[in-house]
Amino acid sequence: MKIPEILMVETVHRPGSLAKVLQVIADAGLTIEHLTALRREQGRTLWEITVDMDEEADGSLYERIGQLPIARFVGKSDRVFNRHRGGKIRTIAASPITSLQMLRDVYTPGVARVSLAIRDNPQAAHDFTALDRTVAIITNGTAVLGLGNVGPLAGLPVMEGKAALFADLVDLSGVPILMTETAPEKVVPIIMGIELSFGAIQLEDFAAPECFAIEQELQRRLEKPVMHDDQHGTAVVTLAALRNAARHAGLDLRESTVGQIGLGAAGTGIARLLRAVGVRRIVGTDLDRAAVARLEALGGEGATLEGLMQRADVVIATTGVKGLIKPDWVRKGQVILALSNPDPEIEPLAAREHGAAYAADGKGINNVLAYPGLFKGALEARAKRFTDAMLIAAADAIAAQARDDELVPDALDRELHAKVAEAVRRAASAP
Amino acid sequence: MKIPEILMVETVHRPGSLAKVLQVIADAGLTIEHLTALRREQGRTLWEITVDMDEEADGSLYERIGQLPIARFVGKSDRVFNRHRGGKIRTIAASPITSLQMLRDVYTPGVARVSLAIRDNPQAAHDFTALDRTVAIITNGTAVLGLGNVGPLAGLPVMEGKAALFADLVDLSGVPILMTETAPEKVVPIIMGIELSFGAIQLEDFAAPECFAIEQELQRRLEKPVMHDDQHGTAVVTLAALRNAARHAGLDLRESTVGQIGLGAAGTGIARLLRAVGVRRIVGTDLDRAAVARLEALGGEGATLEGLMQRADVVIATTGVKGLIKPDWVRKGQVILALSNPDPEIEPLAAREHGAAYAADGKGINNVLAYPGLFKGALEARAKRFTDAMLIAAADAIAAQARDDELVPDALDRELHAKVAEAVRRAASAP
Repeated sequence: MKIPEILMVETVHRPGSLAKVLQVIADAGLTIEHLTALRREQGRTLWEITVDMDEEADGSLYERIGQLPIARFVGKSDRVFNRHRGGKIRTIAASPITSLQMLRDVYTPGVARVSLAIRDNPQAAHDFTALDRTVAIITNGTAVLGLGNVGPLAGLPVMEGKAALFADLVDLSGVPILMTETAPEKVVPIIMGIELSFGAIQLEDFAAPECFAIEQELQRRLEKPVMHDDQHGTAVVTLAALRNAARHAGLDLRESTVGQIGLGAAGTGIARLLRAVGVRRIVGTDLDRAAVARLEALGGEGATLEGLMQRADVVIATTGVKGLIKPDWVRKGQVILALSNPDPEIEPLAAREHGAAYAADGKGINNVLAYPGLFKGALEARAKRFTDAMLIAAADAIAAQARDDELVPDALDRELHAKVAEAVRRAASAP
Repeated sequence: MKIPEILMVETVHRPGSLAKVLQVIADAGLTIEHLTALRREQGRTLWEITVDMDEEADGSLYERIGQLPIARFVGKSDRVFNRHRGGKIRTIAASPITSLQMLRDVYTPGVARVSLAIRDNPQAAHDFTALDRTVAIITNGTAVLGLGNVGPLAGLPVMEGKAALFADLVDLSGVPILMTETAPEKVVPIIMGIELSFGAIQLEDFAAPECFAIEQELQRRLEKPVMHDDQHGTAVVTLAALRNAARHAGLDLRESTVGQIGLGAAGTGIARLLRAVGVRRIVGTDLDRAAVARLEALGGEGATLEGLMQRADVVIATTGVKGLIKPDWVRKGQVILALSNPDPEIEPLAAREHGAAYAADGKGINNVLAYPGLFKGALEARAKRFTDAMLIAAADAIAAQARDDELVPDALDRELHAKVAEAVRRAASAP
């Protein structure tokens, strides 16, 4: 998997200096993701250049930059690490406890009155505790981002990131919970043992196929919203993107043949939701026979990769395999979403050059578009579960918020998240 | 148990009006805890009068106040409940995520780099996650305050209160975790299943005797600070108070005979810590034979209540039984700490009138004096456990911070908590 590396490069402040540095980077096959001038003094400029690099990239790039007469390789930036230092979330008091009276109200002895009220009527916990704004973000680290099974502790920065976004985007309190167990029959009892602590549960980065049994069993046993984000959050955002892509291409999704390349957690979640919105024909392919069987159980059918490319009006790829789709396979008029990040199964430009009516990669197709509003709306409605209607309402709200030329809207737009939450709340409360 | 009730009473603004109201309250045997004028208009004043009342108190008090010609009983105040509305804690982002670059640094794709660093070196989690400031506050609600087994959900307001105080006093993030299991062999595996999520674990309001096995087993299996606050937090604060009381009375604790009435979680924790500071003779009494056996295992001895009162130089009562100690039993020169809240085993005034050299009740003897600094110091030192040296250092720091006439200092003084944390950190780091 490629991850961003931030290079600090100093150049002589003269026409062409930066261009020469960028050419060296280009020669290494790397694309510039971000570039900023940090400071300029005494005729030299310090640049922060972000490129997505393989984990085990060739370090000689740095030497080659340093060998340019107009440049000096200063080092790699610690900015990402610095922004993680001490962690990305904090628990705070909703109101500061500044006086003895306040202390006596929110702690002993006053709190006893609230405890008794909840003992006598457990529903009062919804009013007088933070339960209805608290979401567990649970992982065992078996499928973190595209990194694979890095373990729960290595997954913690991702969980903290999700919690920070919950806080910033919809004022929910996310609580990272790290587990070491992987078998559903071990994972489920532990979560059941602490579920009372949370208003809702987000399962995150659990690997397939265990993720399916874990989610299903928790949903069966709990009367609160439980969602494996890698399945359904991804499905919601993909459906939103697909709605806009289909509109651009003039396709009716329900009458189209959708081809899915990759049927892991994401692919399965997408197939489920597409069936729920009435897509009649889904053909799918995956190296894992059990994954294809899951699709068949949802009413889809298995296919070869080539056969799928020949039949599908819409192609959705979630494989993590760069360049898997050969440009020659693209049929005229196809809609192609090659969602693997950071390297898509086919470059959108190449797909369009080979006749695709519409093509996009997974940049911007991020679960953070969906999960904050999904949980906010479900909690506001005091929903007992996520229903298909809630997921579809979220996808439609996301799709509607995109501007004309966008596939999906800006993830940091709080208005988007408020609209998603409102749509989900309505869908949850509808009879 | 008595809990505070806030009465809203309107009086005619005239000399003697308030006195008449207070006399009715006095006739009901209730003491005024707090009194504020909320507003005055058109010759009438609205008062907020706080009294500690039994849960099932006689409601005719309100009628009797209303029958006064100069007063009107407006109702009970919702202030305590209002201060609980929506809960008392929030999770926030340590730094707001305001730009795309920030999003890419703290979430995908940048976070992948931090995840890999932790995968390769788990110690990096101390630097780049909030682990070292995160404390689980775990309860199963079997012994909440003086309310007994009200269940975990009813215990949540107490856990949130503790988390709010963690945040306000020492900038730690408390995470309430509610469990339904009570047997140690069920509780321990669940906590072990999620312990990786937290830098330290505070066990709270677990009933005796299960609390002992649960704490011991977790301490044995985990290399991080684990503490049952009802035992050791209480012991630390009691030792601090005792240091100051002994100084006032001119007693040498180690050479004194300490009598403990009540040997539950608090009493056992106190006995342990007193032995650790070198107290040679502890006699104790409890209705539960197993509780007395615990004291004997610590090197103390059992006694009758009367025998204990005859032998002890220092009496510490933690029974929850109001008025258990008859004033006639007090011996001249005794130090008496009657710690049950809100009603002590003996009123300090009565004890002193019967010859006690020093007597105090449990008002102000609150665990919040100790636990924030204990956990802050232990986490800062990356301590693998709480040692007696750390508990004693905390007690000494608390005792030293009290002003001359105080038994213990003000719990809302942040300087106190910084000093406790520093003392604990030093004790943890000492060879």
